[in-house]
Amino acid sequence: MFHPRSIAVVGISADMAKFWMRELYLDALVRSGYPGQIYLVNPKGGEMQGHPIYRTLSEVPGPVDHVVASIPARFTPALMEECCARGVRVVHMFASGFAETGVPDRIALQDRLVEIARRGNMRIIGPNCLGIYYPGGRIGLSPDFPGEAGPVGYLCQSGGNADFMVRLAVTRGLRFSKVVSYGNACDINECDLLDYYADDPETEVIAAYIEGITDGRRFARVLKRAAAAKPVVIFKGGYTEGGLRAAASHTGSLAGTDAIWEGVIRQAGAIRVYSIEEMVDMLVALLRMTPPEGPNTCVIGNGGGASVMATDEIERAGLRMALMPPEIRDELAGFIDLANSMLRNPIDAGPVTQQDGLNFLLSLGDRRPMEGLREAVLAGAKVGGDWQRLHDVLRRWPGLDLVVYQHGFDISPTPVDECGVAGSAGMMMRAASELRLPRAIVLHSMANDHSWQVTVELRALCADMGLPLFHSMRGAATAIRRLIDHHRAHPGWAPRPEPEENVAARVRAGRPDHKTGGPASEIAALLPGPARGQPPSPAP
Amino acid sequence: MFHPRSIAVVGISADMAKFWMRELYLDALVRSGYPGQIYLVNPKGGEMQGHPIYRTLSEVPGPVDHVVASIPARFTPALMEECCARGVRVVHMFASGFAETGVPDRIALQDRLVEIARRGNMRIIGPNCLGIYYPGGRIGLSPDFPGEAGPVGYLCQSGGNADFMVRLAVTRGLRFSKVVSYGNACDINECDLLDYYADDPETEVIAAYIEGITDGRRFARVLKRAAAAKPVVIFKGGYTEGGLRAAASHTGSLAGTDAIWEGVIRQAGAIRVYSIEEMVDMLVALLRMTPPEGPNTCVIGNGGGASVMATDEIERAGLRMALMPPEIRDELAGFIDLANSMLRNPIDAGPVTQQDGLNFLLSLGDRRPMEGLREAVLAGAKVGGDWQRLHDVLRRWPGLDLVVYQHGFDISPTPVDECGVAGSAGMMMRAASELRLPRAIVLHSMANDHSWQVTVELRALCADMGLPLFHSMRGAATAIRRLIDHHRAHPGWAPRPEPEENVAARVRAGRPDHKTGGPASEIAALLPGPARGQPPSPAP
Repeated sequence: MFHPRSIAVVGISADMAKFWMRELYLDALVRSGYPGQIYLVNPKGGEMQGHPIYRTLSEVPGPVDHVVASIPARFTPALMEECCARGVRVVHMFASGFAETGVPDRIALQDRLVEIARRGNMRIIGPNCLGIYYPGGRIGLSPDFPGEAGPVGYLCQSGGNADFMVRLAVTRGLRFSKVVSYGNACDINECDLLDYYADDPETEVIAAYIEGITDGRRFARVLKRAAAAKPVVIFKGGYTEGGLRAAASHTGSLAGTDAIWEGVIRQAGAIRVYSIEEMVDMLVALLRMTPPEGPNTCVIGNGGGASVMATDEIERAGLRMALMPPEIRDELAGFIDLANSMLRNPIDAGPVTQQDGLNFLLSLGDRRPMEGLREAVLAGAKVGGDWQRLHDVLRRWPGLDLVVYQHGFDISPTPVDECGVAGSAGMMMRAASELRLPRAIVLHSMANDHSWQVTVELRALCADMGLPLFHSMRGAATAIRRLIDHHRAHPGWAPRPEPEENVAARVRAGRPDHKTGGPASEIAALLPGPARGQPPSPAP
Repeated sequence: MFHPRSIAVVGISADMAKFWMRELYLDALVRSGYPGQIYLVNPKGGEMQGHPIYRTLSEVPGPVDHVVASIPARFTPALMEECCARGVRVVHMFASGFAETGVPDRIALQDRLVEIARRGNMRIIGPNCLGIYYPGGRIGLSPDFPGEAGPVGYLCQSGGNADFMVRLAVTRGLRFSKVVSYGNACDINECDLLDYYADDPETEVIAAYIEGITDGRRFARVLKRAAAAKPVVIFKGGYTEGGLRAAASHTGSLAGTDAIWEGVIRQAGAIRVYSIEEMVDMLVALLRMTPPEGPNTCVIGNGGGASVMATDEIERAGLRMALMPPEIRDELAGFIDLANSMLRNPIDAGPVTQQDGLNFLLSLGDRRPMEGLREAVLAGAKVGGDWQRLHDVLRRWPGLDLVVYQHGFDISPTPVDECGVAGSAGMMMRAASELRLPRAIVLHSMANDHSWQVTVELRALCADMGLPLFHSMRGAATAIRRLIDHHRAHPGWAPRPEPEENVAARVRAGRPDHKTGGPASEIAALLPGPARGQPPSPAP
């Protein structure tokens, strides 16, 4: 399934209305450097991008291992027979209009496909799905999916959720070993895929979006085995009564009651989430964080209101805001002004670290702040200054399990600019990367287009560096609580460290778009004499 | 407080490190056209942007109604005495370093300010806060806050949450009557402000971020009166045990236990939310939706997985996915293909409406799709076609209370482009604007920078048109459930319709940035012959 010597794309068409087929199943294969043979098939014949289009599968000259079928449902049995005759191993049935319609004829049609496949010793992926993305085997899919592989093995009953999850995970620096969108699961199903990923050496963590299952006992058994081998993060789509009906209508699934699902997932030791966003947060926690030994958290960041809200989110998720010991508070008070700060926990970092940020910006000369930040990161420069003093104090805090750094952008009274992003949030990010305790970074409160634009380089750099980046405190805290629970149940598991060259390659790649500011020297020019202090993050 | 004849900004400085003061308390007043006198005060003297800087408040030539004070805390009593002598009415104490520090000296310092204010018959806003934004009185604040007024009166104990909330609400088309960031509340407090907004004819809906209160009985009484007059949306910051401590450290608040808060808010008939995002969602629901009579919801949108997840979110929030009557299903099946659709509830709209979108794009000639969409909206053109047929059927669905339209962008197998945005989501948005039933629009799943960019014009247009726009199904469903409950408790309340000219002005203003595509004619050129069908929203 993952190593076909050749792929035939049946139903490809020069018709503009089917441009997506060319992009997904021809362009993506070519671009990703698929080493096997690609054959195109359409009754109209012709050619496309130098590839001849064969009128039937039978006309294809060489052996065909894998067929992608995007033709009307009624023609699929005939195609299956042809596949049978040609010795095809796997048919990915992109086509829809089968059991998911709930119409008896269509259910019967799907059953016929399975019969033919059994007879011809073939396997079917689908119908009603996107198929395979396997960067390691150079099987690309959507044009914006990355060429590099990573540790996440993903099985997804929905095509849309495969797309959304890959794209969202990429913005957080994650990559995939294999993704299979498997739709109606008339043959290859969630159990087969879980079983496979459990043993797959390329997969460190398994993610699953499942709407329904066909064999509950096997599923419970397979899930238990997989979750014992590596973390399995499950999002069960259709867990409410209406959702159950919707799942039946989408992929023809028997969705099961929520109580049964809860029991099966819990007993297996898998991790349950309730949205694609929560799934990505969980993967970030598993793959980018050292699991904390306990829930005692310190939050460091900017803004008083943000700090109060952060505390609520931390405790609501089942973590605990650690009480700051008086001697730690005294040490902090030794170098931090009382006004406009919060020397308890959470710690309002604005006034602590503004001088560090300003010194950094002043050191940049004519470079753009984000350019300077990227260079400093690449050069492995240490942060030093007040951040280092702060970390020195934190290290002496007994019983602290975890530090969460948070920076909100649109909580600033004046719109955020690149200097603020690089000098404040960027320095915080660099500091976080140096801390030895388990830590997470939350870059949040991008309310509008301006703050989105001006922060995009920083967010990309943070993800590229392999830091555990979240975009809401609620998301971070929920994932971290689940990480602690998972770590307690599976203390032996840890992801293999990512190869150094992968990280370096991602960081070097950079993000050339979205240059949002001028050179840092413009700030220096504006500063009257020796600069003391940036704008306070006002009205906390 | 809201109508000062003159404002003196004490502590303004040419120092770059205090540039924000100039932006907030000089530039913003000038730009917003503040009609009164502006005086600048700093012991160093000099001038700024043509305004002389007086060395002391006593030197100011004319009467001073309002003082903004950004000076170190230790100098504030002397300033208060000066204010007293000058007959100042209101002092906005931006400065921090008072009771919020928890240090006895600092608490005493704050008490002294109050004593002096009482003696001089002055009122204090703060300390430790951003102060007033009052577009109707031309008192601007942050440079990116809009000049137009709107129906939301907001009291916010945190400055950062005032900034974030205004910016987030603006992206959804909302505007404010008055915003007061009131910090430590040593004098003017949440009760005074609630009381004021309850009677304020410029305020239709009250939003409140409150960390703590000083007089529980008065608060319960005032809140009850305000919530009887108009909806009051409350976000209580610091509702967990750690959050309570954090609130005390941020604004020196007595935060109270969560059970007491829950009881007081419920008894008053106010609406409780748990984040700034939920607050904005709730304001959108109150101000942009007709309250549904019941929870029976139909969801229309693209993507099967998205539809399943939408159903879960709808039911989890306490709404109900209405069962589609067989006769409605039969009618839909009369013009919608079975394959790649979901003719139950949710309805997968992709295959229903693709021809409408394509026809629209083909009609645009050399215009950019988003330009064409904006023009069509301005001209009030009706959607017609399959959307109209779909709406005709929905109208005959008995007992349907609500339609939620959802469109996900990054669930598409190929990256979304401007044609897809305008032709699919844009047409859906136009259709939604024509439906007479209560309805909401959810534009979601912008995973990465590309989809953010290419959708930003559509989102702005949707908000500008005054449509009820949400960015997650969870957010929409939660707000709508609360809207139904509020409507049942207060059946007589409805916001006054927004003046036509306000809406027209917003829509005309447009969004000139972010042009993301070429002319629509490029598509037409690519189409071989009579175009049938857009790419299906594949693998549901």
